[in-house]
Order: sequence, then C-alpha cells, then structure tokens
Amino acid sequence: MTQENAGDKTFPVTDDIREAMALIARGSDTFLIQSEFEQKLARSKATGKPLRCKLGLDPTAPDIHIGHTVVLNKLRQLQDLGHTVIFLVGDFTAAIGDPSGRNTTRPPLSREQIEVNAKTYLDQAGHILDLEKTEVRYNSEWSNALGATGMIQLASRYTLARLLERDDFAKRFKEEHPIAMHELLYPLMQGYDSVALKADLELGGSDQRFNLLVGRELQRQYGEEPQCILTMPLLVGLDGVVKMSKSKKNYIGITDAPNDMFGKVMSISDDLMWDWYDLLSLKGNDEIANLKKQCSEGRNPRDAKVMLAREIVERFHSAAAADEAEREFSARFQKGAIPSDIPEVTVPAPGGEIGVMAMLKAAGLVPSNAEAGRNIDQGGVRINGEQISDRQLRIKAGEPLIVQVGKRRWARITVVAA
Amino acid sequence: MTQENAGDKTFPVTDDIREAMALIARGSDTFLIQSEFEQKLARSKATGKPLRCKLGLDPTAPDIHIGHTVVLNKLRQLQDLGHTVIFLVGDFTAAIGDPSGRNTTRPPLSREQIEVNAKTYLDQAGHILDLEKTEVRYNSEWSNALGATGMIQLASRYTLARLLERDDFAKRFKEEHPIAMHELLYPLMQGYDSVALKADLELGGSDQRFNLLVGRELQRQYGEEPQCILTMPLLVGLDGVVKMSKSKKNYIGITDAPNDMFGKVMSISDDLMWDWYDLLSLKGNDEIANLKKQCSEGRNPRDAKVMLAREIVERFHSAAAADEAEREFSARFQKGAIPSDIPEVTVPAPGGEIGVMAMLKAAGLVPSNAEAGRNIDQGGVRINGEQISDRQLRIKAGEPLIVQVGKRRWARITVVAA
Repeated sequence: MTQENAGDKTFPVTDDIREAMALIARGSDTFLIQSEFEQKLARSKATGKPLRCKLGLDPTAPDIHIGHTVVLNKLRQLQDLGHTVIFLVGDFTAAIGDPSGRNTTRPPLSREQIEVNAKTYLDQAGHILDLEKTEVRYNSEWSNALGATGMIQLASRYTLARLLERDDFAKRFKEEHPIAMHELLYPLMQGYDSVALKADLELGGSDQRFNLLVGRELQRQYGEEPQCILTMPLLVGLDGVVKMSKSKKNYIGITDAPNDMFGKVMSISDDLMWDWYDLLSLKGNDEIANLKKQCSEGRNPRDAKVMLAREIVERFHSAAAADEAEREFSARFQKGAIPSDIPEVTVPAPGGEIGVMAMLKAAGLVPSNAEAGRNIDQGGVRINGEQISDRQLRIKAGEPLIVQVGKRRWARITVVAA
Repeated sequence: MTQENAGDKTFPVTDDIREAMALIARGSDTFLIQSEFEQKLARSKATGKPLRCKLGLDPTAPDIHIGHTVVLNKLRQLQDLGHTVIFLVGDFTAAIGDPSGRNTTRPPLSREQIEVNAKTYLDQAGHILDLEKTEVRYNSEWSNALGATGMIQLASRYTLARLLERDDFAKRFKEEHPIAMHELLYPLMQGYDSVALKADLELGGSDQRFNLLVGRELQRQYGEEPQCILTMPLLVGLDGVVKMSKSKKNYIGITDAPNDMFGKVMSISDDLMWDWYDLLSLKGNDEIANLKKQCSEGRNPRDAKVMLAREIVERFHSAAAADEAEREFSARFQKGAIPSDIPEVTVPAPGGEIGVMAMLKAAGLVPSNAEAGRNIDQGGVRINGEQISDRQLRIKAGEPLIVQVGKRRWARITVVAA
C-alpha cells in the first residue's frame, strides 16, 4: 500500500494528536486511513486550519432516538477538538425520491417538507452539537448546477465494476434482481458532495462504508486530497440483543421524559453499559477506563450506570432534570437499593401482550397465578419501582422492566411478542 | 408476443401499403416490428399525418463516402413516400466527448466545430434528400433541459441488466474490461431523443440495433407509442470483400470526380452490383427485379452496371456529368468493350506499393518482367483505359484497377499492402 500523507509534508505527531486519534477511533467500526488522518490532524495543529468533517443527513426521517446520536457524539468530539462539523442535507435526491417507484419508502419530498424535516433533525442534533459552530449545507446547491452534462462527466469518473462491489448491488446483480440505473448514480452524487465540500473526514453508519469510499475516490479523481472515513456501529438496544429501533421498542427517544430516560438506562445490563459508554458518553477515554477499573475492583457498577443515565438526561434535558430523575428513581425502589445482580428473563407473550400475573409466574418470581394475585393485593409487586394494584393489568412487549416481588425477589423482564 | 398495433384501431392494409413495406424492407438488416409499422403506414394514409423517421448523426465525422449513404437512400425512399425525415444532430454528447479519456477518437467538440461538421454532413446528404422537407434538430435542445434531476429520472427508467444486454457491454463486462458509468448513460440519452422527437421509426447501421431498441422501450416508459426500428447493413466496398471504408481504400467518395466515380462502379463484380442496387439505387423493387431477370436471360450485366454507375454519378454530380463519364469510360477502352468476364486478381505489395512490371507478372498477365517491359514500351498496357509508358511506375495499394495487356489479356487487379 502506498503511504498516503496529507499533502507532501510530514507534520510531527505529538502526544495530543495521538490522544485525539484514540478518542476519535473509540467505538468505531471502520476508520480509514488512520495514518492519513493523523497527518491531517497534525497539519491542522500546525496551520490552525480546522478539518472539515461531513455527515450526510437524509431528510426523509427526521425523528431520532439515542441510537441515532452515536455519530453525532463522534462529531461533537471532533467539534470539541476544534474541527468543523458539516451537516449535509441531501435535499437534491430527497426531492427526486425513487422515480422507478420500486422503493415506496422513498417518496419525493417537497422543498417545504425537506426544510421542516431538516429543521426537526437539527433541533434534535442541537442537544449534542454546538449548532452555531456547525456548517449546514444543502446538496442541491451544487447538484443542480451539475446539469445533465455534469452528471455525465461525474458518471465518467467511476466504472460499473467498482460500483458493483457494493454488497447490496453485488447481491442483487448476482441474484438477477433488477438494479435501476439511477440507483447506481446515487453513490456518485453522494461522493460528489465530498468533492464540493472538500471534506477531510466523512462519518456514517457501517452500512455507509462503500458510499464514503466513493467520495474518497472521487475527490482523488477531481484532484483533491481524499477524505478519510469513519463509520460507527449501530447501538444495541435496551434488550442487549438487537439494534436499537423504534419497531423493536428497545429504544430511548431523545424526547422521552427525564424519568423514563433515566429508568431505561438503569435497566440495561452491565456489559451493554460499557458499550454505551464508548458510543454515547462524552467522557474522555481515560475517565472511562478509570471507572471500568474501579468496578472491576469492587465498586458497584450501578454507580457507573447512574453516571451514564445522568449524562444522558443532562444532555437532552438539564442537570436539574437529571438530579430530579435520580431522586425519583431511588425513591421508587424501597430503600433506594436495587441489587446489582438482577437475573434477566425473557417472557414470550402470544399476541404481543401478557397479563401481569402470568408474567410473574413465567419469570419464576411466584409459583402460581394465585400467589401472584395475593402479592399484588398486598401491595408487594413493583414494576420499575411503581406499585401495582390491578391483577388484570396487561403488559405489552417492549423494553425491559425491573420487577420486584416482596423484598428479595427481583428480575429484569423483557416481554417479547411470540 | 402481444399484438402491438399503432394505437387501438386497426387500419386497412391496402396494396400500396404492402408495396411501401417491401420497398422499405429492401436490403435491410433488421426491421422491427413490421406489423406495427404496417399499421403506422396505414394510419398515416388514413389520417394524412406523415410518419416521423429519425436518423442520428454523429457530428464528429462529417466526411462521407457512398457506404454512408445507404441509410440516407432509405430515408429518401421514406421521404418520397411522403413521410418526415428528421436529422438528429447529437451535439449534446459531442460537446462532452468521452470525459473518461478512454476513447481518444471522441474528443469534445466546440459548438462551432459541431455546426461546421453538421453543415458539411447536410450538404453531402443534400445530394440524396430533399433538405427543404427535412427536419434538422439538435439534441442539446432537450438534453440540457433535463438537468441533473432529469438525468436521474431518465436513468431510473432502465435497469442495469437490460443495458448489459448490449453486445459490446456484455463482452467487456464478462472480460472484466472497465465500463465507465457514463457509457451506460449514452444509450439512454440517445433513446430519450426518440421520446423528445416522438419518432415513429428510427434508422441506423446494424451496430445501432440495441440503441434503437432502447429508444423504443423508453418511449413506452414515457407513455408514447413505441418507434419501429430499421437497421441497414454496411456496404461492401469495391473489392467485393470487406466493408467500404477509407482506411481500406475500397471506397467511392461522394466528392469523387464523375469519371472516377463511374470507373469505380464499373470495376465491381456482378454479384456485388446487385447488392449495391438494393442498397444504393432509388429504382423501385419491380424495376430492379426486371433488370435482374433480363440479365439472367442473356443481357450483358455490363448494361446494368452502366445504369447504376450513371445513377450514382447523376446523384452526386448531374445527368450531363453522367453522360460525359460514360462517354469517357467507353473511349478509354479500345473498341469500347471490356469483356464481361474479367478475372479478378489480388496482388500483395510489400510496403504498400509495387512496380507496374512486377504487378503485371504477379497477376499472370505476362510471363516475365522483361515481357512486361516490352509490352509497356510498345504501348500495349492500359490501366483503367489509360496507356502506360513508364516502366518504373509504382502502383499503390487501393481500389481495383482494370488492366489490359495487348488486346485479349485482361485482369481486375487489386493491389493490397502485405
């Protein structure tokens, strides 16, 4: 492999550069080419010129949960290091939609819809990023200017074979499923955005890896220094099993109330908590390593979980709201103490919901429905700290619940549709 | 196969329609879909609305020889039948050239160059077509208007798999030779021309078959009645072996002098003459069939060849020039008689040329160089009717020559570079 430095000159890599590299790399899936990015950072330090870090934003789905904030947190870290964050609103292609009509999830959007969606998205991103320091751009700015001629010239920069290297194209081509020609043009359009923006780094989800590399290659073709690419994994949801998504109901919405948000973070397993630290916390690497060390030496991991829950509530609400949510959470549980080793149980619910008594029995917290009923009547059953009085209560499949029966029987129950 | 008529109504197919179909089909390579075109003709007769017949014109190479006029003759037949001929100047793509730089024969052309080339081409085509009745259009008219958005929408109308059905794409893809993405867009652009022009018929060389079918399909996609397609074979050159081309020097230029033109036509073989009749003559099918019958019953085919030579000279010069050329040709040969069964000989010339004496010997017209020299000195050697006096004359590879030694020894000699 050829050594690709940022420009000809080699800039000195100091300890702070190495520390920044470690922070940026934290939790990432793909980070290419690291030696190049190290040089970009070093050059930026030497010249005082910030790096340009691009994130494409699809204005079709503005509503985000904290799973979507993983990439935003990474951008915040870059912003804190003094670099320029660019939100690239893909309005050009959003306005076209999928003209072949094959993809019904991609209807063409009006100018107005696009702007409303982009604004919603930015409002939400504003909890994480300093929007005053964020460059917001719309790719119609240069895409329309390309014209039909520019599109053909752009297309001439890439070969079919290289585009068919993308996994989904390769699969569909092999299986003889149709690929409409405009689908092959979209990665080129996205790549051209990097050319127009002179991006130094492009971020995205792991599924964006191929497209980000197209941008890198096109910049080279247009005589620019190629961008580095950084992809982030999808956040695992509250259940600790599948990726966070609204349809799986294992998510925390960024507009969730402080108490909900706090309780949901407290409900995750210890293992998942450390992954979330890497992907959601803005604490430094050293601080997280230190906390992890303390827990391995006997400190209750619940302390770390409280710190994470507080950080997240603070981010989307306020420090006061975090205080209040913590107090509320402690009060909900007798003596403020949830054991640190609650067993995790999954309870299948035919039709997507289950009666509370059946759930308690299925989770092994009571020997019979009758015993469950008796405990409820006596006020001895709590779900997420809240006393249950209705024997007929139906529990819907969804996020994990911390369930207490009497003083000593606990379980973290996830009801799943069966 | 579904029956695809021109519109819903079925128009009566009369004898004159059938006759027109036979004329249009004469000499063609592909003619699709004939039942559809028959209906278009019948509808045109019923409604008085002429059909729109499109020919794309590549403004990179305006200089034409009679091989290029095969398609123009077909258009002339259509024009004589009362239909509209449209010359489509591909200025949009000509101005782009091949931006990938892979195809050096396709440099971008300036607006000025394109117009000069198109004018040259039209001047030449004017010998065959009535330009006053010809619609000349430039595809930049609607291609630029597409913009980047329109290009993507156009691309969405076609799948990759269908484009890879084109022979040269399929071959290159299979052999893993690069196909730049813009190359895949060009057939779509060309097809879109048919949409914009609402073409009823598109003509082209046999190598254009795929592209013409794309136009047909795109018209359907855009809700238009699909065009029929008519491809013509390449004309075989003077040597009767390979396709007419400038590089093979087996061509008749349309600016050739009348005598040259006449002599060249007279030099072709009888078999080739009948092919040329189909592809170059504007005589009706009946007339040609009649002539052929006469020759098969004993008439000298040379008479038919003189008629063809006259027709071609008349077309590119005048009737007077044809008279003069015929007179001149007869006078050049002693007693005005060339035998009708001259043997054809190919003589290899290392380095592309050969001495006249060596040529005579190689062709078997003389037993030795000495004998060749003697014949020259005595004035007994004629090439294309012209007496040769120079023993050292060098003959270049190229078109066939009618060579006479003494009174009875004849050969049609083609000197080829070896």
